[in-house]
Amino acid sequence: MKLVTFQADDTIRIGVVRHEGIVALDDSRPAFRSMRALLEAGPEALEAARAAGERETDHIALSDVRLLAPLPRPAQMRDALVFERHLRQARANRHIFGLAPEWVSPDEIAVPAVWYEQPIYYKCNRFAVSGPEDEIRWPKGETRLDYELEIAAVIGTGGRDISRADAKKHIAGYMIFNDFSARDFQFSEIQAGLGPAKGKDFDTANALGPWLVTPDEVDPADGLEMTARVNGEVWSRGRSDEMHHDFARIVEHVSKNETLHPGEVIGSGTVGNGCGLEHGRFLSAGDVVELEIEGLGLLRNRIGHMA
Amino acid sequence: MKLVTFQADDTIRIGVVRHEGIVALDDSRPAFRSMRALLEAGPEALEAARAAGERETDHIALSDVRLLAPLPRPAQMRDALVFERHLRQARANRHIFGLAPEWVSPDEIAVPAVWYEQPIYYKCNRFAVSGPEDEIRWPKGETRLDYELEIAAVIGTGGRDISRADAKKHIAGYMIFNDFSARDFQFSEIQAGLGPAKGKDFDTANALGPWLVTPDEVDPADGLEMTARVNGEVWSRGRSDEMHHDFARIVEHVSKNETLHPGEVIGSGTVGNGCGLEHGRFLSAGDVVELEIEGLGLLRNRIGHMA
Repeated sequence: MKLVTFQADDTIRIGVVRHEGIVALDDSRPAFRSMRALLEAGPEALEAARAAGERETDHIALSDVRLLAPLPRPAQMRDALVFERHLRQARANRHIFGLAPEWVSPDEIAVPAVWYEQPIYYKCNRFAVSGPEDEIRWPKGETRLDYELEIAAVIGTGGRDISRADAKKHIAGYMIFNDFSARDFQFSEIQAGLGPAKGKDFDTANALGPWLVTPDEVDPADGLEMTARVNGEVWSRGRSDEMHHDFARIVEHVSKNETLHPGEVIGSGTVGNGCGLEHGRFLSAGDVVELEIEGLGLLRNRIGHMA
Repeated sequence: MKLVTFQADDTIRIGVVRHEGIVALDDSRPAFRSMRALLEAGPEALEAARAAGERETDHIALSDVRLLAPLPRPAQMRDALVFERHLRQARANRHIFGLAPEWVSPDEIAVPAVWYEQPIYYKCNRFAVSGPEDEIRWPKGETRLDYELEIAAVIGTGGRDISRADAKKHIAGYMIFNDFSARDFQFSEIQAGLGPAKGKDFDTANALGPWLVTPDEVDPADGLEMTARVNGEVWSRGRSDEMHHDFARIVEHVSKNETLHPGEVIGSGTVGNGCGLEHGRFLSAGDVVELEIEGLGLLRNRIGHMA
């Protein structure tokens, strides 16, 4: 099932994608008023949404609506860093920001032992979400804007101390996530040791969409092909099964001592080859960035003018 | 004005502290249903709360209620690191975690230039908040639990690109913040470069209270005395005017390119001398930690048994 949040006329609703249209869910039912409400209502409500999607014959054409992020305001948002190829290639290019004297081979990057032992992550600005038809705001003062090609998992059922074996039952679905990044800001602030903040948090930086796909249709462990294009040119190709820690392990780790809630979002981190930094290239105003992931659709965003 | 969230019988309400009691705010008014609702309703609602607090004569004794965190679920939560003395003293003790060969003088710690130029911060787990009468859960697997003596500012009116000159108008008030920290976890994960996560995010880790004090009563720039006691023994003494970046500058920086919302919380970071790590001491199960800050009251928490 593919779930969407969409705007038609002045109303924001949720629905189920069927063929080329959307079956709008009846928003007189509290569980169908928003994606957060649907996730909070639990598995039964998700099954009711599925049944409505199969039963109803009234469709709204996709071209007649504005798609928003499937979950416009996550309950909370984290982003991991579990692709070793990305980590090595991105760090190899730190010389661009004056943080290393010169380029070194990704093979020579020293990856700390803790990275192999546990998923490393930071927390995103949950208010900085944009959707598949939104323009990305160029952050004032930044010169090296970048995209990042990622998959995000959405928590359905909450919990604490979730085992790896049980973790999949807590994931309601997956979305494409473009973690737009302001590299000047990021590489400046991370020198102080508390991780990324302004480099990742600017309004619209977290693009999600086009839909939330339930796990019966797609599993990142199966090795989904992932592609990023800028103005039609392929900049990135990667595969989701190169994750060193899979989503089940990520949920296990994040939920240790810590209660997860419905509607929390956790990104995989950038797939190997999955951002401009790895290739020494950055975005320009007006660029159109398309992320495409097998089974998850296509997320397209235009970059706004330089502020 | 001192605002509280409290539980009496099975009901959670908000109120204004007056003498030794609480004037409960009329929760048939939507703006008075929760602290988030009050902050979202804006300055007029805050003035109405003040007027009710002065007008009403019915008090509930503080001893007859359970105080919760003034804002039990912040819209979002960040924590800065703006006290240089803390930064130097905490880093001097990295040898405890095997991250430095031995103790070096705090004066010899290399502080990156960016720390002096901009407030450095990370984002907290907004669901991990506890209040003045809550026991702190010992995180499973941790051996060196610590407290951190801090002030937190609460955003009232939201906004983006707020100037330093305007910033104070966006702050609804201040609270004591005990940023309980799991040092083993923290010093392990931060080696991977994305900042603290499990070291700060465990359930109950963010203790707030006892009340939210409006800026007409208190200003951290005035140099508030800050004290931490463990089982009655003073472990920490500091002063709030040692902040290298004041709250106005922090709000300016955080809001650059990024919209702040009512009910977001921003911590100052630990005051100099303000945690056990700086003194090479850590907490034990059953300890009672009291943070006291001039004008902001006293926040007391007991540490639960070791999990």
